[in-house]
Amino acid sequence: MPGLNIYCNFHCSGVELEMLQRGTAAHRLMIVPKASRSPLASGGPDAILDEADIAVGQPHPQSIARLPRLRWTHLTSAGYDSYDRPEIRQALATRSAILTNSSAVFAEPCAQHVLAFMLAEMRRLPEALALRQTDHSWPGRTLRLGSRLLQGQSVLLVGYGHIAQRLVQLLAPFEMNINGIRRHVRGDEIVKTWNVAQADQVLLLADHVIDLLPGGLETQNFFDGRRFALMKPTAIFYNVGRGSTVDQEALQNALDAGQLGAAYLDVTTPEPLGPDHPLWTAPRCHITPHTAGGHVKLVEGIVQHFLANLRRFETGQPLLDQIVAPEPGAAR
Amino acid sequence: MPGLNIYCNFHCSGVELEMLQRGTAAHRLMIVPKASRSPLASGGPDAILDEADIAVGQPHPQSIARLPRLRWTHLTSAGYDSYDRPEIRQALATRSAILTNSSAVFAEPCAQHVLAFMLAEMRRLPEALALRQTDHSWPGRTLRLGSRLLQGQSVLLVGYGHIAQRLVQLLAPFEMNINGIRRHVRGDEIVKTWNVAQADQVLLLADHVIDLLPGGLETQNFFDGRRFALMKPTAIFYNVGRGSTVDQEALQNALDAGQLGAAYLDVTTPEPLGPDHPLWTAPRCHITPHTAGGHVKLVEGIVQHFLANLRRFETGQPLLDQIVAPEPGAAR
Repeated sequence: MPGLNIYCNFHCSGVELEMLQRGTAAHRLMIVPKASRSPLASGGPDAILDEADIAVGQPHPQSIARLPRLRWTHLTSAGYDSYDRPEIRQALATRSAILTNSSAVFAEPCAQHVLAFMLAEMRRLPEALALRQTDHSWPGRTLRLGSRLLQGQSVLLVGYGHIAQRLVQLLAPFEMNINGIRRHVRGDEIVKTWNVAQADQVLLLADHVIDLLPGGLETQNFFDGRRFALMKPTAIFYNVGRGSTVDQEALQNALDAGQLGAAYLDVTTPEPLGPDHPLWTAPRCHITPHTAGGHVKLVEGIVQHFLANLRRFETGQPLLDQIVAPEPGAAR
Repeated sequence: MPGLNIYCNFHCSGVELEMLQRGTAAHRLMIVPKASRSPLASGGPDAILDEADIAVGQPHPQSIARLPRLRWTHLTSAGYDSYDRPEIRQALATRSAILTNSSAVFAEPCAQHVLAFMLAEMRRLPEALALRQTDHSWPGRTLRLGSRLLQGQSVLLVGYGHIAQRLVQLLAPFEMNINGIRRHVRGDEIVKTWNVAQADQVLLLADHVIDLLPGGLETQNFFDGRRFALMKPTAIFYNVGRGSTVDQEALQNALDAGQLGAAYLDVTTPEPLGPDHPLWTAPRCHITPHTAGGHVKLVEGIVQHFLANLRRFETGQPLLDQIVAPEPGAAR
């Protein structure tokens, strides 16, 4: 299946660009000259997209719905909020077009980021590392008595996709009690998994609540005041999903009122969070600026993942990380 | 073997004291009323120590060497600097007395602390968490590009005892290249292990150099200017062993000169480190105030470990964590 037109508005250069060019040499690669470097901003309308059989990057959402020639769109992000609309899904399904994302690529850094958060909290790193910025004091006894081990604590993975599954592997040596919440429980999960309707009853038992939810209408403000009130007052809340899944005012109130042990947020609404936003100064609230999915070799990983999918597309095999699949039911 | 006199200058109270009292009910427990809360300070001479068959805590080092009745001393610390003297070892060995420590108890928190350090460095947590204290800016792109995954990197465990062995288990899911350095290589280690004479040749290959050495004359300034110069300029140095194992001026110089990627220190010389000490402001130097071994249930763990050893002592089985063993060669 050579000679396809591949539209690319994914910014890459140097060795990664060479890798992309080599891997698509049998086709015609149409690279958008000034693609955005942001992995989160989708591109605008683009005349050359009309000619594409395949689009990779963050192509204009309405265009991919509209263009009959486009058979496969591969997003270079894990998130797909702006593509997750009924009219886009419907349009793609009608013409048997495929939508995939790069969620497998982001699973490893995100899972390591969550474990970094969890261990930082257990070992009191935020307080200890801040001593360097503040008074150079030595509160060894206080911090030792406030330190904990992960053993025996319970974890709730809210959203059971690639990140959750990798995190389960990383947590294995710690002998924790792990539960998952998933839109559609399959029964083949390696931890006890519950559906969304059962979320509340497991939420109240968790020591670590890990928000891995995608954005979109269905997950908007999933973590609201009611759910924060259900949690243990010692529970730690982590978000590496999307800021939109959290009612931030409710989170702020829960932290202020001591209804929640701590929060570790890699995603917020908006991003960047303005310097005056109250979450910056909320008690026990720790923020990383949407870095969980990143690492120095990420672009290489994204290119490799796309090329692996391209090989599958060429040979008619099912694609990895399908969001809209050609056959109904094949999507996650 | 009931009716032994057990001297205890280990501070414990509440449920842990009850556990200790229950577990020693067949004997006579002689608790020092105002024992130090510091796990690092050994006690002074004490007349009631003369009557003891067993001493637990941090009993006066010269006394345990001198008292003929004392058959077993169990230290409630992992470190044993003040007991690690030729004259004390000799005196104990001559009368077949045993010296044990609690290193197994500290292995879990210390291993989790090291992994917390490693992941914090990989995910740029020191820079990100400091934003809360500083300007609330959002350097997402910079931090993402500076973030890394542990996969494929090399770790050197300098000191291959309980902490190292537990850390090897915690690191298993990350597919790293792990080497160890040990005073006496046994051949049954589960990672490639080298003796001290071979240290330099493995040091120069390591991305993560983890100092787990005990204190004492033999390890004094093991990490000196020459060894820091051997390391990769991107190597990260971690110390959860003892401050005395590092030439801190050489470390400072290596950080200043960019000869070392970063340092994570849980132990320093002196402790507390004075507020004006230059390590507080050394570039890429992150300090926790000797908290790696601590956690909220530590006292319980120490008591359980002592009681497990007491059961072994009563029944003539080899004790756990022997430093001076009754038969030559049984010590680590």
